[in-house]
Amino acid sequence: MDMDKILLAHGSGGKLMHTLIDEVFRKRFANVILDEKSDSAILKSVPKDAELAFTTDSYVINPIFFPGGDIGKLAVCGTINDLAVVGAKARYISCGFIIEEGLDFDILETITDSMAKVSEEEKVKIVTGDVKVVEKNMCDKVFINTSGIGMKSKRINLSRQKVVPGDKVLINGSIGDHGIAVLMKRGDFHFHGDIVSDCAPLTGLVEEILKESSCVKPDASADAGVKFMRDPTRGGLATTLNEVVGGMDFGIVVNEANIPVKEEIKAACEILGLDPVYVANEGKVVVIASKTDAQDILEIMKAHPLGKGSRIIGEVVEEPEGKVLMETRIGGSRIIDMMIGDQLPRIC
Amino acid sequence: MDMDKILLAHGSGGKLMHTLIDEVFRKRFANVILDEKSDSAILKSVPKDAELAFTTDSYVINPIFFPGGDIGKLAVCGTINDLAVVGAKARYISCGFIIEEGLDFDILETITDSMAKVSEEEKVKIVTGDVKVVEKNMCDKVFINTSGIGMKSKRINLSRQKVVPGDKVLINGSIGDHGIAVLMKRGDFHFHGDIVSDCAPLTGLVEEILKESSCVKPDASADAGVKFMRDPTRGGLATTLNEVVGGMDFGIVVNEANIPVKEEIKAACEILGLDPVYVANEGKVVVIASKTDAQDILEIMKAHPLGKGSRIIGEVVEEPEGKVLMETRIGGSRIIDMMIGDQLPRIC
Repeated sequence: MDMDKILLAHGSGGKLMHTLIDEVFRKRFANVILDEKSDSAILKSVPKDAELAFTTDSYVINPIFFPGGDIGKLAVCGTINDLAVVGAKARYISCGFIIEEGLDFDILETITDSMAKVSEEEKVKIVTGDVKVVEKNMCDKVFINTSGIGMKSKRINLSRQKVVPGDKVLINGSIGDHGIAVLMKRGDFHFHGDIVSDCAPLTGLVEEILKESSCVKPDASADAGVKFMRDPTRGGLATTLNEVVGGMDFGIVVNEANIPVKEEIKAACEILGLDPVYVANEGKVVVIASKTDAQDILEIMKAHPLGKGSRIIGEVVEEPEGKVLMETRIGGSRIIDMMIGDQLPRIC
Repeated sequence: MDMDKILLAHGSGGKLMHTLIDEVFRKRFANVILDEKSDSAILKSVPKDAELAFTTDSYVINPIFFPGGDIGKLAVCGTINDLAVVGAKARYISCGFIIEEGLDFDILETITDSMAKVSEEEKVKIVTGDVKVVEKNMCDKVFINTSGIGMKSKRINLSRQKVVPGDKVLINGSIGDHGIAVLMKRGDFHFHGDIVSDCAPLTGLVEEILKESSCVKPDASADAGVKFMRDPTRGGLATTLNEVVGGMDFGIVVNEANIPVKEEIKAACEILGLDPVYVANEGKVVVIASKTDAQDILEIMKAHPLGKGSRIIGEVVEEPEGKVLMETRIGGSRIIDMMIGDQLPRIC
């Protein structure tokens, strides 16, 4: 582009918008479906034995660049991961940009480069999109919505209904990295450290977990393999565990000493008065697995690059129903609720 | 809710967010898929002979309430229409809300009521969603992204490639209503009138058009029936017609006198220095149909409540290639290009 800033007219639907779409988006995301320039992407190849999974997330993270990623990588990974945890492989992604007038083209190009890179690596196609531009001070730089369609084998049936007391709770590594990395980058706190977001696509790890899991074997007993998965993003591990037990006739007990937290995250959380169990992650998955298979699944997770720090952190219990109990380092135990206020706004 | 304003904590991922989602969104959009509270909606019923259509749009319209609709109705209709014009029936919609801290709950409830109403009428399910809250002045009230999945028969094949000289160009009624209604409501201009947006879902009209069209009959000749459709939203009719001819070896000639424009829209455009062919519509569809079938299709369109004002407004010509020519009322002709600047920012 000749101009180095986004103008209102780039969102007008007219000539400048077409140039922006061609030169920034289509150039990077090119594929046969997107190249059709249709109002809707036409997706012809839906395997007959597959179910669809469909998800959406808007990203309003501040700042848009942080150690370990940017809003573009985050948006694509976030959508891939929401599909992965239901056992679906992301295939098609849409992106909707809301851009503040005056944004540097450079920024948009860097963000879309990130989106293109992770999409290509994960073999996901960005097939449709939209750009809106709002006046200066009517949004904060850029917001991105990504929606995604994934394909899921009918044999994969992950559900909270399958969870029973005795099941184990696993996680693929240390918690709190994303939230603290973003907070550090904001510079509101005079704390220096080498903290990097865990922002990463989880499809590969989840595929390994499911490949060997009896949840995909028709002849396995109901009480086997992986029962349920969820990625602990906003609200952190504590909120996700509460979502698992909410309204169910079982609880979860986790052991604080078993929850992996890096020393620098612990230190930052202490200074900031945060509890790492409420801090957002963007490359973590909580897995609920049957007692019998938990150890095998742990080994599978550990063998994957994104699961080296995997641990069994707790188990499903009969009581307290619908609650999450944490056995603390000092030998006591306390109920950990969902996050109440907002520790960290605009973390994703 | 006890509180009457949106707080940052409503976007935290924690307890307040869950309450907001349950009491505002789930209550209105309830369906078995959404009720699963999964990271991704699981869509089991994909007919074997269907293709999928997938689309996304973010809505940043200002003001959020306007004569004939609000941002919620607009978002759902917009996504339904982007699917309709490729011949797909909208089935599943996602919604991503970005809300400014301090927004009244009342506003959110009115908007979601509108979304629920049109979704229900159109038998579309809102199956997955997301809420983010940003600080005061970091967005303007509320932005909504809707993405949609539609189902399309494989026999429906609409493509610019099928368009040939001699084909007719039709539209289902008068242009410019949406853009002018929004502009009036902004109150920047001291102009009073009874102008209402045409915001409406087009699935029903498009189904009627396609039902009788040879584009869905395997034995019809290639040069028959409906060839291509597009909804002239941002950038108006002129931009849409330019999108049709762009890069193709044909042009389009439209006759200004045949383009339906209401008297009050004409008057407003004259005062504001706008050309109605560039003003946004939200309930219009441009149809390119074969010469032989155009008259029949016009009658079908006229018989539908959303097509009473249908007209044949022009035709596809060999020259000028890739251009849109308008024969003016005064007997001359001029090239009408895509919109260049931005007449009307944040019109959708």
